[in-house]
Amino acid sequence: LSFETGQRDVLGRIGVFETKSGKLETPALFPVVNPLAQEIPPRVMFEKLGSKALITNAYLIRRQAGDTGVHDIHDFLDFPGIVATDSGAYQMLRYGEVEVGSAEIIDYQQSIRTDIGVILDVPTGSRASRTRAMETVNETIRRADEARKVIKNRDIAWVGPIQGGLYPDLVAHSAREMAKRGFDIYALGSPTEVMEQYLFADLVDMILAAKMNLPFSTPLHLFGAGHPFMFSLAVALGCDLFDSAAYILYARRGRYLTQAGTLHLGQMEYFPCKCNTCASTSPDKVRSLPVAERTRLLAEHNLLACFQEIETIKESIVEGRLWELVEIRCRSHPRLLEAFQRTQKHRAEVACCAPSTKRKGILFFDSTSLQRPEYVMHLERLLGDYVPPREARVLVLAPVMTHRPGDESSDILVGMTKAGKGAHVCLYSPPYGLVPSELQDTFPFSQTETLEEPDPEILKVMAKAVQSYLAKNRTYRAVVLVRSDRGWHVRYAGMCKSVCTKLRVRFSSVTDKEISSGLTGTAAKGKRYLGKNTKGKPVKRRE
Amino acid sequence: LSFETGQRDVLGRIGVFETKSGKLETPALFPVVNPLAQEIPPRVMFEKLGSKALITNAYLIRRQAGDTGVHDIHDFLDFPGIVATDSGAYQMLRYGEVEVGSAEIIDYQQSIRTDIGVILDVPTGSRASRTRAMETVNETIRRADEARKVIKNRDIAWVGPIQGGLYPDLVAHSAREMAKRGFDIYALGSPTEVMEQYLFADLVDMILAAKMNLPFSTPLHLFGAGHPFMFSLAVALGCDLFDSAAYILYARRGRYLTQAGTLHLGQMEYFPCKCNTCASTSPDKVRSLPVAERTRLLAEHNLLACFQEIETIKESIVEGRLWELVEIRCRSHPRLLEAFQRTQKHRAEVACCAPSTKRKGILFFDSTSLQRPEYVMHLERLLGDYVPPREARVLVLAPVMTHRPGDESSDILVGMTKAGKGAHVCLYSPPYGLVPSELQDTFPFSQTETLEEPDPEILKVMAKAVQSYLAKNRTYRAVVLVRSDRGWHVRYAGMCKSVCTKLRVRFSSVTDKEISSGLTGTAAKGKRYLGKNTKGKPVKRRE
Repeated sequence: LSFETGQRDVLGRIGVFETKSGKLETPALFPVVNPLAQEIPPRVMFEKLGSKALITNAYLIRRQAGDTGVHDIHDFLDFPGIVATDSGAYQMLRYGEVEVGSAEIIDYQQSIRTDIGVILDVPTGSRASRTRAMETVNETIRRADEARKVIKNRDIAWVGPIQGGLYPDLVAHSAREMAKRGFDIYALGSPTEVMEQYLFADLVDMILAAKMNLPFSTPLHLFGAGHPFMFSLAVALGCDLFDSAAYILYARRGRYLTQAGTLHLGQMEYFPCKCNTCASTSPDKVRSLPVAERTRLLAEHNLLACFQEIETIKESIVEGRLWELVEIRCRSHPRLLEAFQRTQKHRAEVACCAPSTKRKGILFFDSTSLQRPEYVMHLERLLGDYVPPREARVLVLAPVMTHRPGDESSDILVGMTKAGKGAHVCLYSPPYGLVPSELQDTFPFSQTETLEEPDPEILKVMAKAVQSYLAKNRTYRAVVLVRSDRGWHVRYAGMCKSVCTKLRVRFSSVTDKEISSGLTGTAAKGKRYLGKNTKGKPVKRRE
Repeated sequence: LSFETGQRDVLGRIGVFETKSGKLETPALFPVVNPLAQEIPPRVMFEKLGSKALITNAYLIRRQAGDTGVHDIHDFLDFPGIVATDSGAYQMLRYGEVEVGSAEIIDYQQSIRTDIGVILDVPTGSRASRTRAMETVNETIRRADEARKVIKNRDIAWVGPIQGGLYPDLVAHSAREMAKRGFDIYALGSPTEVMEQYLFADLVDMILAAKMNLPFSTPLHLFGAGHPFMFSLAVALGCDLFDSAAYILYARRGRYLTQAGTLHLGQMEYFPCKCNTCASTSPDKVRSLPVAERTRLLAEHNLLACFQEIETIKESIVEGRLWELVEIRCRSHPRLLEAFQRTQKHRAEVACCAPSTKRKGILFFDSTSLQRPEYVMHLERLLGDYVPPREARVLVLAPVMTHRPGDESSDILVGMTKAGKGAHVCLYSPPYGLVPSELQDTFPFSQTETLEEPDPEILKVMAKAVQSYLAKNRTYRAVVLVRSDRGWHVRYAGMCKSVCTKLRVRFSSVTDKEISSGLTGTAAKGKRYLGKNTKGKPVKRRE
């Protein structure tokens, strides 16, 4: 049993979890398989659909087959991959108490040679009062202690469920307590209602409450993860494993899953998919099939759609584009966008755990991108550790050249203002309000691709950064802002002026044309403020 | 030759174009096929990849095979589907003049029995001066007149190219002139640079300039449409046909196309795709293949990715979700989001041509969704044709009940304010600033799903609608706004108050709790304004 992680992005990572039946690459999805009746035979899942693992229910098997009816769960299901077994906790949630003890079900999972076993937890659900939620947390912890006494097979990976439901502080407490007890996998109990009613914003709070209180070196499983359109968000927040019955539950109701939502077979005319199942048929043909066959085909497609999303997520991690993927997926449903916005609340936690450099640049869209870990970290560093040059007295804010006619090269300015001692050139370029020119080649500043016209929210955040920077570094006596005639340059200059007025820092702005003409310009203004003999030589305009 | 259109969304539609070699469902993509050397044999394209049509180059065939070497282009290519032939205009753009006359190449296309032929136009390119662009437009029109004299085979569909490049007014002129000449298909010449440098925002202007000046009953082709991530935007703006060589050009450079971007095979670890090609192999294996084999596999995947996007677009039209798809795809690259924002400029044109109802609700995200045709039309109708009830003197603005505890039901209010004559109840619910309650069940108001917390931009637009509405309908003497304690309700009340102050309309707000208690409340306030004896009965709170 081991878990090794490799490439990372945001809180997501690619990992390899080793079980007694082989290695499982994470993020991974365990399709939920009914032990007693399967629309897709587990062997077909393994061989045709590429499912390396599944999860089934030890409680239901035992109820059906008795204590000694099953010797090896792999043989019983005819599945050569990795088998995880749930303990019956879900049944408990749905039907009340189950007639099995906590120790019993652990023994049973050991006897059927499962690869991954779950202790019998007490799911919190989403309608529990705080008192009841606390009880479920404590009872689960008590059973974890009990379980540890009964567990003999150390070649089985044991899952420690985290409860607490919609109370993040209880989830955090649960995570800390379970972590002390040393499980091979931690699993966040996600109330069915959270998934069914798309309460993804609450799920964000829950996942992070768990993640931040668990060892990063252990995989985190999200119970009942449902629809593939929320997998990327969950992975970005640190989930490594999922189980989902959505593929079959949706199929039974004639629903067709895509990476962006759910379609109704009854109304479809085209399959927007080139998987083996879809490529050779059409919605019309599938509709005309007997119900069992139709359900099987839909389930196969749905499962492939889930696996495809997992592959998409993994490749996004490799590319350093997981955040971009989440931004895209969150446009699948307003509830998902709300969940994405909720990450704003946790941006500091997310940013500090995310990788601080990557080999690819970042695509920055609009104000929704302001939560990006790379951007949050940039601000953190600028307003935290960064110390400006000791002699800096005039902050020269210069735009980054965008290779558009009419924009001045920042190179010219850098060269020019070197003449004026005390001048400190910082660059601005959306979404960055200022970046010290000595850091202009660092990540993520040099590798950000964004819109040429920042939206008002971005401009506001940029000016806010200048304000915080000046408030922190009181050595600057004046700000000189260089701008072109472009609309947003003019607006930004106005905003920076207000900031300076508020902080009682002198402000002036100069256009790139004035600099080119060399008559007025930065150096001259710098001179006035600094009282030094800086030269106002004409600067050659680069064509 | 016929073109019939069926389901529509935004300016996109599903259609069937009939050629002498069969029917082609649109939107459709013609893969560009080199007539002299193909990485994927055309028959494989047809049988294995499902390509019903392709486009090749009549000029290159003639140069190679001479005037009489090819009797039927279908046999020559071994392609049983629909063949379109280009005339050499692209070669002209790239290599200067071509050694073939305008009449000659039409004759030649007729002789090889093409299904869709293009007259020899003069591409504008993207570096042309305005004068040069005008010349290309005029010369293309002149050649169109010339062509009409040479065209004998009326079973061939003839394409009339629209030129004008980056000058929308010239594109519009070109479209109007070509439309007079009655072609079977119109095709917008899209400068290669527009595609290569991702100048999609300019492309939006070009497409709409053409579309709005062409008969909607004729298909519109976009030349050289490139990457699949921009297909949905082009379809939403009215393009029916595309040709693209991207699948093979990208494959030759080891590039892997997805619906959201381009990956480099050299750096990939997972294929985020379940197509026939990808499902059975891995990036590692494909990298180890001989270059020709590798290119072929990549080209096959790329082409399937393009076709999959076409199917996705078609199904989106069926579902009435094309706009949502475009919103998602525009998050693939900042240049695409800029293009999407550019549609704002054209929102009135787009909205008036888009279907005004649909069977599905709309998903409304944030301020980027404000351009939605359904929303634009709603505002248009509200501030245009709509006439409030004659006796309306007090505008009661009530929130829509969201089934959340704490929010009052608008039903209660509707019932209650009926008591006060002259009270006109309008509802508010993001993104709608006000909707007359008598219209509350109409599309799109009743079918909009959005975020529970509108962003500041949305609130601003909502208050703006109230302002325009009050400015237009001067019969209201007062506004009574009902709100809960929720943050955005309070902010919205403040904004509406400012609006009223500006317009000198009396304003008061009342909380839902006050209404429930029945002591103060709408009726009482209404009474004060109206001077009528309205009753302030306690209203039962619905649980």
